[in-house]
Amino acid sequence: MTRNHTPKTLAVLLRARMQSDPIPTPPPHPSPPPPRTGPDPDPAATPAATVRHWLHASASTASPAPAALDSFSDGYRSLDRVGRREILCSLATEYDVPRARVRDLMRQYMSVASAAASGGGHAEAEEVKEGAASALYRMERGLRDALRPRYAGFLEAMNAQPGGLKLLAVLRADLLALLGDENAPALRALDSYLKEKLVTWLSPAALTLHQITWDDPASLLEKIVAYEAVHPIRNLIDLKRRLGVGRRCFGYFHPAIPGEPLIFIEVALLKDMAASIQEVLWDDPPTPESEATCALFYSISSTQPGLSGINLGKFLLKRVIDMLRRDMPSVQTFATLSPIPGFMQWLLAKLASQIKLSETESEERNSLGGACSTFRESILLPDEERMIHDAIEQADGNQGIELLQDILKSRQWVKSEKLSAALKSPLMRLCARYLTREKKRGKALDAVANFHLQNGAMIERINWMADQSEKGIQQSGGVMVNYLYRLENIEEYALSYWVQGLSILHLACPSILSRRIRETNYTPRTNFTSREVYICHWMLWNKMIFMDRILYSSPVHCEHEVLF
Amino acid sequence: MTRNHTPKTLAVLLRARMQSDPIPTPPPHPSPPPPRTGPDPDPAATPAATVRHWLHASASTASPAPAALDSFSDGYRSLDRVGRREILCSLATEYDVPRARVRDLMRQYMSVASAAASGGGHAEAEEVKEGAASALYRMERGLRDALRPRYAGFLEAMNAQPGGLKLLAVLRADLLALLGDENAPALRALDSYLKEKLVTWLSPAALTLHQITWDDPASLLEKIVAYEAVHPIRNLIDLKRRLGVGRRCFGYFHPAIPGEPLIFIEVALLKDMAASIQEVLWDDPPTPESEATCALFYSISSTQPGLSGINLGKFLLKRVIDMLRRDMPSVQTFATLSPIPGFMQWLLAKLASQIKLSETESEERNSLGGACSTFRESILLPDEERMIHDAIEQADGNQGIELLQDILKSRQWVKSEKLSAALKSPLMRLCARYLTREKKRGKALDAVANFHLQNGAMIERINWMADQSEKGIQQSGGVMVNYLYRLENIEEYALSYWVQGLSILHLACPSILSRRIRETNYTPRTNFTSREVYICHWMLWNKMIFMDRILYSSPVHCEHEVLF
Repeated sequence: MTRNHTPKTLAVLLRARMQSDPIPTPPPHPSPPPPRTGPDPDPAATPAATVRHWLHASASTASPAPAALDSFSDGYRSLDRVGRREILCSLATEYDVPRARVRDLMRQYMSVASAAASGGGHAEAEEVKEGAASALYRMERGLRDALRPRYAGFLEAMNAQPGGLKLLAVLRADLLALLGDENAPALRALDSYLKEKLVTWLSPAALTLHQITWDDPASLLEKIVAYEAVHPIRNLIDLKRRLGVGRRCFGYFHPAIPGEPLIFIEVALLKDMAASIQEVLWDDPPTPESEATCALFYSISSTQPGLSGINLGKFLLKRVIDMLRRDMPSVQTFATLSPIPGFMQWLLAKLASQIKLSETESEERNSLGGACSTFRESILLPDEERMIHDAIEQADGNQGIELLQDILKSRQWVKSEKLSAALKSPLMRLCARYLTREKKRGKALDAVANFHLQNGAMIERINWMADQSEKGIQQSGGVMVNYLYRLENIEEYALSYWVQGLSILHLACPSILSRRIRETNYTPRTNFTSREVYICHWMLWNKMIFMDRILYSSPVHCEHEVLF
Repeated sequence: MTRNHTPKTLAVLLRARMQSDPIPTPPPHPSPPPPRTGPDPDPAATPAATVRHWLHASASTASPAPAALDSFSDGYRSLDRVGRREILCSLATEYDVPRARVRDLMRQYMSVASAAASGGGHAEAEEVKEGAASALYRMERGLRDALRPRYAGFLEAMNAQPGGLKLLAVLRADLLALLGDENAPALRALDSYLKEKLVTWLSPAALTLHQITWDDPASLLEKIVAYEAVHPIRNLIDLKRRLGVGRRCFGYFHPAIPGEPLIFIEVALLKDMAASIQEVLWDDPPTPESEATCALFYSISSTQPGLSGINLGKFLLKRVIDMLRRDMPSVQTFATLSPIPGFMQWLLAKLASQIKLSETESEERNSLGGACSTFRESILLPDEERMIHDAIEQADGNQGIELLQDILKSRQWVKSEKLSAALKSPLMRLCARYLTREKKRGKALDAVANFHLQNGAMIERINWMADQSEKGIQQSGGVMVNYLYRLENIEEYALSYWVQGLSILHLACPSILSRRIRETNYTPRTNFTSREVYICHWMLWNKMIFMDRILYSSPVHCEHEVLF
């Protein structure tokens, strides 16, 4: 964040940026625990031992005393990273699933279940069956109970405690950090169980939607400034602008964490779907609200790292769309202007691996005269390679992909008009490929794409030079994407994404495109598959390829492998 | 409720009483389903079949469409009792636990678990153990999932839907009514599962405490009028009084059910713990708040029959006490003035069974000359029996217990000073016995007593002629009880009640009593057990027995069996 231009008198609110982080950062390196006073059962005990004492007092009984839970909370918050690790490990292993009991219950269940299955045919079958059914239900309930780890009761009680939900969010954030370093099965199971419970506790039914305005308390607004993660708020004027005419900000609040949203979304009301973040953040004067036809979601920030993986955004988006539709019937388009946070990282990794591959191959060719590797891909099309060579006026020497790697790493290309022009075509094409074809377990590799697609959006358009901030260039080469929420299709798309993962369905092929195609008299070649036609349509719509390239290119070129 | 004195101009709000019940009452007798229009998939289908269609659409997929859930909700609400029964049975049986899958997973789990248990001792033991642990955790998670009935997802999705929590409360209220008539194991399992989920969703963390005042919207106040279950609000003046000086009303609200409390509590700020509801409801002028030292909880009403068994009151009480302590440091006593709803029912049943027993015995004695039954109890003490005989001037003929039964059934005794005086001693003694010794699964038989004792209160004092309303006489012979919340003991008492059930611990033996005993120079007889001494203390404090009776009564009389 640049804070240089903030007038001194306005700096008060912004100082919150530094101070309001509610999760104390543990020291970066393990350090000896600091001396500490408190409700310590044994004054000689280490802080972590004291917290373990309170953990035991809370987790070993079915209805823990609030005072013990509070002492645990205070103690845990005061621990450093090492101490917290000790507590988390203790919680995960010492209050685990009671396995012996589970096995006993299972054996009982199996015998009753098989008796019930074989008990038919007699005169008293009905009555026996009802008795057996009762027994089965009772045992299933008992098994469900037994399969709950013993820390389940502790987590429930903590959640019921004032401030407990927040403590659990802190605890999970620590757990996630820990799991980044070590992969202990017990810790992973604790995380998975806690996440499951958090999903239930943070059910949308328990959350309140609130429109955040300039009339809200400063203590709330400072949270917005502190947590805005996508496009940092530079100063008070910037904040006021985001809450003023033609803008909306909505937050999801939970009664147990008052005065700060768990997640919030910023909306711009515009005449058209914006193609760059600059026109959203600095349009002056703003579009009169009566002329707006598009609600553009340009920032979604969640505030609790411990709630990672719990999709609060889905319901927030739905409720915001419902509210905007009701209040502003003239708004017909609901879309985002979103970053593509993983694009550059993916591309640089891809380039590096291809460069490595081609080095190995040339060595092999030199020594053995072997054939081309099947792992080799054409990242750049010949035209694109030529344009890059031309732009840096270095016709021979390094290969195109090596040049591209150097150019992207230096991040200086944005300042050169020539280089930018040469990179536009390959970067847009590769970005489209990254968004629409790169997967992780069948879902979009890009986290933001995955978020919107699972909520029922479609990929509508990618935009060149849409975010020229340092972060924008570094993460996505300045490219941004519009995801479109088409109200009549949201559920259908969310379901298809959930079932089938990322597919061609999630590329917008709007009716506008059909018109466009009619206007240009474009007829797909007959040997295109329908999938290729679809992709061609989409690329046309995104002005990524030109009519003549599709119509006159060789058949090989039109394989979608090459199109992207 | 008497509405005769309500001025016409104030009647508007009170009309709500009749109309605001949000749960449509199904017709008292099963009737053919009414014709109905709607998003019906097959226009010829019965309404229940249509709702089953939507149930199937919602419950057979992991992420049901909101439209299907809404159609289910609307359809379900429009059904009569028979239709709702059909839907509930369908939900409970067709979307049950997938038993075949559970058995498969169990077999797998057992083999992995035994392999893990026997795998120690080798060099690679650590690594094997970690792998096995991972597998165990994964399988335990799978088993937890499989043991969830298939309707679990439907319930979760419904809860996440706007209006869904309310629908689930309606559904559970129907289920409870149904379980009163038939005891199908599948329905009972559905109820138990739904209750478990509701407890989680309605965790106190998700609830907001709000002080209800005369400035609140009429739409909220009409709910208070409609739902007040303990001491009906007679008119607007009565309502305004309960929200005015010296009074407080707090409600627990859930974001998913806006504008109406799930439960609310009425508090009077008084100089002393009140001994009758009359002094609470009609004290005029009210005690100045600056002189109040006692916060008396005189009414707790929950508004959703479908949330029965979910203890929201416990947390509400705790938070209200915390809030009052903070705002009014001069208030030191937190107590209730509570009805004893089951007292008369219990006593009449007891009298009936004893009368039956004595009839049988006299027959047996006549025919066989047998001994006295061991089931026979002395319900009335000889003195009490004599006083009743004297009061009705009928010295011979019927036995004391038969007379008592007749008197209580007629409910006319309240109007006779003589009869009231004669009944005071036995009714107070029997009421003390009912509250402190009659149990159901170890807990207090009386529902209100059980509620307060599990929340950590103690039985402080019983009060004669404390509620002279028709309901008060009918339910508890006009007796009311003060439960005392002693802040320093709440947790300890709640825990002891939870673990040991109703015990002597839950009788208040206040320090005032010790002083009182010192004043009268009372020394317990040495052959009293400490339990007897304790009970004697308590009865003294309640003015139920007199010093001379304890000091000079025969040893037999002092057995606590006889004391109560």
